[in-house]
Amino acid sequence: MRELTVDLGERSYPIYIGEGLLDSAAGYFTKHGISKKSTLMIVSDSHVAPLYLETLEQHLRGEGFRVTSAVVDAGESSKSLAVLEQLVAKALEAGLDRKSAVVALGGGVVGDLAGFLAASYMRGVQFIQIPTTILAHDSSVGGKVAVNHPLAKNIIGAFHQPEMVLYDLNTLQTLPIREVRAGLAEVVKHGLIWDESFVEWCVTNAGKLQALDADALGYALYKGCSVKAAVVSEDERENGLRAILNLGHTIGHALEAVAGYGELLHGEAISIGMIGSAKLGLRYGAPQSVYDVTKQSLQSCGLPTRLPAHLDTDAIMDAMSHDKKFKESKMVFVVPVAIGKVEIKSDVPVEWVREIVEELKQEA
Amino acid sequence: MRELTVDLGERSYPIYIGEGLLDSAAGYFTKHGISKKSTLMIVSDSHVAPLYLETLEQHLRGEGFRVTSAVVDAGESSKSLAVLEQLVAKALEAGLDRKSAVVALGGGVVGDLAGFLAASYMRGVQFIQIPTTILAHDSSVGGKVAVNHPLAKNIIGAFHQPEMVLYDLNTLQTLPIREVRAGLAEVVKHGLIWDESFVEWCVTNAGKLQALDADALGYALYKGCSVKAAVVSEDERENGLRAILNLGHTIGHALEAVAGYGELLHGEAISIGMIGSAKLGLRYGAPQSVYDVTKQSLQSCGLPTRLPAHLDTDAIMDAMSHDKKFKESKMVFVVPVAIGKVEIKSDVPVEWVREIVEELKQEA
Repeated sequence: MRELTVDLGERSYPIYIGEGLLDSAAGYFTKHGISKKSTLMIVSDSHVAPLYLETLEQHLRGEGFRVTSAVVDAGESSKSLAVLEQLVAKALEAGLDRKSAVVALGGGVVGDLAGFLAASYMRGVQFIQIPTTILAHDSSVGGKVAVNHPLAKNIIGAFHQPEMVLYDLNTLQTLPIREVRAGLAEVVKHGLIWDESFVEWCVTNAGKLQALDADALGYALYKGCSVKAAVVSEDERENGLRAILNLGHTIGHALEAVAGYGELLHGEAISIGMIGSAKLGLRYGAPQSVYDVTKQSLQSCGLPTRLPAHLDTDAIMDAMSHDKKFKESKMVFVVPVAIGKVEIKSDVPVEWVREIVEELKQEA
Repeated sequence: MRELTVDLGERSYPIYIGEGLLDSAAGYFTKHGISKKSTLMIVSDSHVAPLYLETLEQHLRGEGFRVTSAVVDAGESSKSLAVLEQLVAKALEAGLDRKSAVVALGGGVVGDLAGFLAASYMRGVQFIQIPTTILAHDSSVGGKVAVNHPLAKNIIGAFHQPEMVLYDLNTLQTLPIREVRAGLAEVVKHGLIWDESFVEWCVTNAGKLQALDADALGYALYKGCSVKAAVVSEDERENGLRAILNLGHTIGHALEAVAGYGELLHGEAISIGMIGSAKLGLRYGAPQSVYDVTKQSLQSCGLPTRLPAHLDTDAIMDAMSHDKKFKESKMVFVVPVAIGKVEIKSDVPVEWVREIVEELKQEA
């Protein structure tokens, strides 16, 4: 079992990573002050609930917790104010009070939704994250929770730190391989922005990771969470440093917006985006090896590096045009200067970005 | 001009109280770091906007601020997730970013709604309160913001402190007398829980207050805000002391729930509730003078002390039955032990409360 602390002063919390942690969840709940008098609510989705919800509920009830649960449809559409309102109704009917906890059992969508429920129900109750995807290692650190608005993603939210994160590696065994790889994109990203030796480790262990080797996965998640925790500890409210976590995300988000639903997973989109960032790095004078290693690390994890040619360049550029500097023909980008080191460039010519989008369609 | 500080560490903020402050709002905005580069949004309601919105917008624009505004229907029904979603759409369309501010121009409903918008838009932006009612002196201190759920009031919200509160006494001149009096109920309450000499001052100056004498109003709001600020400074997240602010509110909220919309204003309901609390005080051994002075202070401000006889006692009791101790035939009440001093009693027999509800119908 591995453990690390996200250091945020009085809002600090631990992340536990290991096999079979779900079976001893009650002990962790008690250790972190979750009440047995007030009802807690587990929020899960239609993919994860059939696998783990009943077992968790029975375990917690057997240990004396009062438990209710809510299952939302799997997928991004559940991150809405309408679903939040339904969850609040359920919480009220089940009698959740100010000493209750909300538990997220699932991936990033469930974590964001349940986290915003915890942040806003009665102006804030305790929150526990039980991530069941690799990708969720990213969203489980830092306390960013939110729902979407029809006009913008993650626009209504809060910073609400959990009491703890319980990462049971066994729950990752049921992930489809494509989601495993997409999740590894954020793992590799944490290496690329912060830790060259971890990037090398990812390349060496890419096979084990895709084979869901528990020890390799545990280490990768531990390292990925550690990098994110280090960044977030320095900049909880995203005033500066935290922006480096957006490596690959400017182009990545644009690709997600332009591609049809399901064509590109988030991790796949940011993988292509990170290749784009590496290409930008070359233009700013980074050595060729930065591009080469970036590409090698992503490809070794089975991630795409070429932008699907049928995605329209104008549409992609348009999806990036909310950048405040766009009117001045400039954009803000996180750009690698070495493996493990990035800089924020706030004067990237829009024309360069367009050229790179075109080049990405030719990428091998 | 009077000024006081709500002392909350790095979240401390000032309250400015004076005549004509709206005309110099821009100076205060600049002093408190409101950006002229990012668009700010004024939220107001259909009663207040026709009186002050255009003037404020033009003043701020004239001083170089980028301003957009949104007007919601006056009344409690605007405190909903649906209206929040509309405001977020408006904010996105106007290009509000993370350095933007939301300004509440109105009473408690606008403050709560705009405050939750500020708390949740992009996970939190700056917030400024410009209260235009006496009642809002209460909600403008302490950072509690929220919207309602069909099943419960104020259940979805946050603690989000404003950058400052700008109280322009001139905006109170247009208040209907009934709302003036209802607002004074919370002013008197702040005296009853904390400051005997201020209660005496209220009795002496009740005539001036109802005549909207600017100097008397300014002092009353200053004192009311000061008491609330002292309580909130000690207990920002409502873990203990802050509960004393609920004097009169247990019965008061029940009356609001049972009476038809508009029959009882919030201040009127808690006025009756405070008489009930004083009666409870007598049962716990408080001197008769506590009841007498409570009644005198409320009546001098033109507030009701008798519970309308047609309101059904069973329905009133039922509206209080969500109290966690209700099943054990007990309730939690804030009870005066002297003028300016209250205690929290967590073992009040439900039967006593029922008897007092009946007695309140006979009150002179």
